Amino acid sequence: MTPVPPSEKEPFKVTPWAVEGRIDYGRLQELFGTSPLDDELLSRLRRLLGEPFHPLLERGIYLSHRDLPRLLDGYERGTPFVLYTGRGPSGEIHLAHLIPFELCSYLQRKLGVELWVQLTDDEKFLFSGRAGRSELSLKDTYRLGRENLLDLLAVGFDPKRTHVLFDTLSIRSLYPIALEVAKRVTFSTTKAVFGFRNDTNIGSIFFTSVQSAPAFLPSVRAGRPVPCLIPCGVDQDPHFRLTRDVAEPLGYPKPALIHNRMLPGLLGEEKMSSSADRQDNAIFLSDPPADVERKVSHAFTGGRASIEEQRRLGANPEVCSVWALWRSRFAPDPAEFAEITRTCRSGELLCGECKSRLVPRVQRFLREHAERRREVDAWLDSRIEDGPPPGRGG
Amino acid sequence: MTPVPPSEKEPFKVTPWAVEGRIDYGRLQELFGTSPLDDELLSRLRRLLGEPFHPLLERGIYLSHRDLPRLLDGYERGTPFVLYTGRGPSGEIHLAHLIPFELCSYLQRKLGVELWVQLTDDEKFLFSGRAGRSELSLKDTYRLGRENLLDLLAVGFDPKRTHVLFDTLSIRSLYPIALEVAKRVTFSTTKAVFGFRNDTNIGSIFFTSVQSAPAFLPSVRAGRPVPCLIPCGVDQDPHFRLTRDVAEPLGYPKPALIHNRMLPGLLGEEKMSSSADRQDNAIFLSDPPADVERKVSHAFTGGRASIEEQRRLGANPEVCSVWALWRSRFAPDPAEFAEITRTCRSGELLCGECKSRLVPRVQRFLREHAERRREVDAWLDSRIEDGPPPGRGG
Repeated sequence: MTPVPPSEKEPFKVTPWAVEGRIDYGRLQELFGTSPLDDELLSRLRRLLGEPFHPLLERGIYLSHRDLPRLLDGYERGTPFVLYTGRGPSGEIHLAHLIPFELCSYLQRKLGVELWVQLTDDEKFLFSGRAGRSELSLKDTYRLGRENLLDLLAVGFDPKRTHVLFDTLSIRSLYPIALEVAKRVTFSTTKAVFGFRNDTNIGSIFFTSVQSAPAFLPSVRAGRPVPCLIPCGVDQDPHFRLTRDVAEPLGYPKPALIHNRMLPGLLGEEKMSSSADRQDNAIFLSDPPADVERKVSHAFTGGRASIEEQRRLGANPEVCSVWALWRSRFAPDPAEFAEITRTCRSGELLCGECKSRLVPRVQRFLREHAERRREVDAWLDSRIEDGPPPGRGG
Repeated sequence: MTPVPPSEKEPFKVTPWAVEGRIDYGRLQELFGTSPLDDELLSRLRRLLGEPFHPLLERGIYLSHRDLPRLLDGYERGTPFVLYTGRGPSGEIHLAHLIPFELCSYLQRKLGVELWVQLTDDEKFLFSGRAGRSELSLKDTYRLGRENLLDLLAVGFDPKRTHVLFDTLSIRSLYPIALEVAKRVTFSTTKAVFGFRNDTNIGSIFFTSVQSAPAFLPSVRAGRPVPCLIPCGVDQDPHFRLTRDVAEPLGYPKPALIHNRMLPGLLGEEKMSSSADRQDNAIFLSDPPADVERKVSHAFTGGRASIEEQRRLGANPEVCSVWALWRSRFAPDPAEFAEITRTCRSGELLCGECKSRLVPRVQRFLREHAERRREVDAWLDSRIEDGPPPGRGG
């Protein structure tokens, strides 16, 4: 079991609940013991998935993995796998939250695989009100949870191949598996993996078992080992290291993982996240057009101090929050993305013009997303495991 | 929060999972901070409940409480309460397990109150395989759980006023409340109350939240505060101290408790409990007549070394496992019980004769119990909260 990076030795820290400092992704791979998503593996994925190859893979936003080749070996020998990803509902959905769901949507469309989505309203209740996070009731996290699911599933999924595990509603399916996991994990282990302390509440201590359960539930339902691939932010890796440690003793296949890097915040922070006083750090899916325009126009870029200097020296896309948006989603055409990157570096494209081009793309994306969201509302409740919430048909 | 009795200072130790040493019940009340069930309170109960007054109350088997007068005040002012008791299914049911259920049956019959029964199959899975306990799978604890419920409910309940919380089946009702509890309890608290350590598994650490939940569920269902009385063995008190500590901050009434002493084992142990090599310490509800006869005839008594000595000095019922059986259930007629006690003390009644009288009573009780058990089988599944087990009609 690899511990979290000790903060006294490393200038950054990554846990499922906090990202501090500037992440050195190469060093993080060493610390976590993950493998790079290298050219050979990318070529293999490209052969399997065909064209168009997804920008999230093509452009290095997915950057590391655990056991992906073994999963692909099985798939190519005829053993289908399932996808599992999730969301902790602590607030509204912003663009960064979509990344694992966009990869899942693409993989489901290409391979026809099933998706299991976990909505951890229990987690966000248990961890709220600590370390600067505002207090959330179970009613809050439940309400946010349903809203969040509408946003996330609007990325595009086949309802018949999509299972929703809404923790407080679906706990009867999750709990027996969580118990099996919990019996094999001690408090000491959670101290080492998550940095828990004696004053951590006992719900938070137990919670990682509930996050492990969806990786094994498809095997339980099928009555045979079903391989599982978990696309997630690299900050969620500690949970799944633990899941992988207990998998084989419990008779389940170790889940494979594929990790995305953090999407930077518009205010120049390492991770697009938001709080009451930093709403402009993130673009929410509910943002009206004027907010999108304001947020992008104020966004942190890799530009120079003056137009003259930028024309002469070029800008630096690697640190730019606007370029990160082009890279992730808003320039799906490889030629356009290459052009934006080249002219940014050369000084031909100035930040103001670049932002002006991006704003309408984001506005249009949000408008179309809102339409797809209404379609999801028609089927979401029927896909919640163990039945819909009380008082709703389904 | 009162800690468990420190074993270096006290010659006995009582936790929900172990009773060690000879319990000094007076000292235990001091350590736990409970109140004696004194003559004044017994008189009040007798006025409320009328005749016949139950032997478990009359004869001091229920011996302490928390907040019982306040619960009775409310009842007499027109606020009904619910009963909550439970069972951890680690093995077959023996006579000692019936004690809280017999009191509940009597109170339900007398007062018409609702009973909530919790079956903690999760707990017994999580705590199995440690401290000398044999390993149990969730399948084992589930199977034992249903068998145990048949035995326990055969004591006699009104199905319409009986709710069964079978943890792994009813977790959707329990979990949101358990989360509220868990958020207010730290690992430090569970160390102090239960003696947990860093190598305790995270399911065991969380479990006490699940045992708290039934005390609050009736309030959640009713949408108003519903007082709750918990009849239980004194060894279960630590869980409910914690339940009481979190109740008011969560907006629920503090549950009241009434505690029974441990029924001694037939081999002279402090608590009637059993393991593979001590089957003769307890009378199981499934024991065939010949086993009852053997176990009673070998039972530890308060008799003397010789008949002559016993005739001269009398025997000591206080330490006798056979007298404890008469006291609890097998001499419901007060005159008969007084006669047995008097003649035991005087030396008129010898142990062999006393045992010969008891054996047919126990055999008859078990025979009648088995008939009532078959009746419970017809309604049990329909009373499990959140629906019956998969594959069974409801």
